[in-house]
Parts: sequence; C-alpha cells; structure tokens
Amino acid sequence: MKRKFIVVGLSLAIGTGLAVEAFAQAKPEVLVKQRQAAMTLQGKYFGPLAGMAQGKLPYDAKIVARNAEYLDVLSQLPWDGFTAATSGEKSDALPAIYKEPAKFKEAQERLRGAVGKLVAASKAGNEAAAKAAIGEVGKSCGGCHDNFREKH
Amino acid sequence: MKRKFIVVGLSLAIGTGLAVEAFAQAKPEVLVKQRQAAMTLQGKYFGPLAGMAQGKLPYDAKIVARNAEYLDVLSQLPWDGFTAATSGEKSDALPAIYKEPAKFKEAQERLRGAVGKLVAASKAGNEAAAKAAIGEVGKSCGGCHDNFREKH
Repeated sequence: MKRKFIVVGLSLAIGTGLAVEAFAQAKPEVLVKQRQAAMTLQGKYFGPLAGMAQGKLPYDAKIVARNAEYLDVLSQLPWDGFTAATSGEKSDALPAIYKEPAKFKEAQERLRGAVGKLVAASKAGNEAAAKAAIGEVGKSCGGCHDNFREKH
Repeated sequence: MKRKFIVVGLSLAIGTGLAVEAFAQAKPEVLVKQRQAAMTLQGKYFGPLAGMAQGKLPYDAKIVARNAEYLDVLSQLPWDGFTAATSGEKSDALPAIYKEPAKFKEAQERLRGAVGKLVAASKAGNEAAAKAAIGEVGKSCGGCHDNFREKH
C-alpha cells in the first residue's frame, strides 16, 4: 500500500495513489490487510464486553454503549475485503468463503443482527439484555470463525 | 494476540484471554497492531473521498456520507494505542508523540473537528462543503504525519 498518500499545503493537495487504489480495484494484499484490520478492531472493542458478560470484568455501561456503537460500524467493514481475487493471499480465510457465499453472508448478517441488539440494549441501559446480546455477538463471531477461518 | 478468543456453544462461553488483555493492560505489541489497524481503515475510507475531492473519482454523495460516518468512529480509535509503553515497539511513531502529548492531542482534535464538518456537510448534501471538509481532513492527516510519523 502506498504510504505517502498524504500531502499538506494546498487545500486539496491530498491523497492520490491510495485514493484511486482503494476505490476501484484495491490490490488483493491491500484487501486482506484492511479486512484483518477490521477484525483486529472488532477484537479490541468486543473483548472487554465479553469479559463483562462473563463477570470477569466489572460491568461498565458507558464502555458497553461506546463499544457497541464502535462495533456497529466495525462489523460492516471486513466483508468487501473477501473477494475471490484475495483467495490466493496468505490468510486464515477458508475457501468456503468463496464456495458458499450465501452461508458466509448469512453469518455476517447474524453478527450485524446481534450487534444491533447490543446497541439497542446498551442505549436503553438494559444490562441483562446487553449481556445477552454480547453472548449472541460472541456466538456469531465464533460460528463464522468455525466455518470460515482456519483453525490454529 | 490470542487468536482463539472465540468459543461457541454456551450462551456466554465467549472470549477470555483477549477480553482481559484488551481491557486492562493490553500488551504494547497489541496496542501497536490495533492503532495501525485503525490507521489502515481510515486510509481505506478516506482514500476514495480524497480522490473525489480532487476530481479524480466521480463524486458519489452516498459513499461520501457513508465513509464520513465510518471515519467519525474510526478517527476516535487509534489514540489510546499510543502509550509510553509502546515507545520501544517497531513502528513509525516518532518520540514526539510522547514528548509533546499536548501537541499530539491537538492534532487528533484537528482531525476530529474536520471529520465532524465532513459528517455535517455530507448529511446536508452540500457537495462543496463536503469537498472542503475532505481537504481539511487530508490536511489534518498530513499535518499529524509530518510531525509524529517517521518519513520513508
């Protein structure tokens, strides 16, 4: 990926290489990096919620609401990075992603639905519902990883 | 980072290692990976907007509004990863980050302000204002990189 995509100075003297690259036809290795970045950040913001739902961390309604909002965006970001063009790249993505796109899509929607419930529950300040939704989010992560990610 | 943080099955049989790790005292290398992930995704969603503002890509109000919303979340995510504990990790972060925290914070706020203007302009369907805000976002990225990121 082009590193130097930022130029300062003139008001529109901004990113060229990356812009075009990212828009139309991102290179497979860029797509892999971007989708992995989205997974990394989902882990960052889901991790503490899982700990809270399990009682391993003190429940903090503010953090739950904030992370739920972040996850509502982050859970939309990985999917366009899983294109057939990336199937030759080194990653943990299993061929099932490209062979069973409907099932893969269903797994994404399961996550999106669970995150939606989490956002609603945390906005309503409903701790029990939020914890249940965190459980659903965790299961949807795990279900998708079971079917579509290589085990280590 | 613990890979296998997801378990399926019981409703709350979810993430342990990562949860605790991410919440309290994430390891320096995890913090670096997470903050780089946030930068990668900012690049993914800002790149096309830069291209549009420069007239190198056709202006698409829907993509601008969507990416603005994503950036509104993403531009909040890198900063807690820049802790003094990470200063020994391999990355492009310059020591100035830790030596001039007020200036670094100011650079973050400049980005947040520019992204806020972009969100408002794109919601209002104001193409000229959105393009101006994209320019400001680009300048705030570049200004921060100039002062706080190693040049290559």
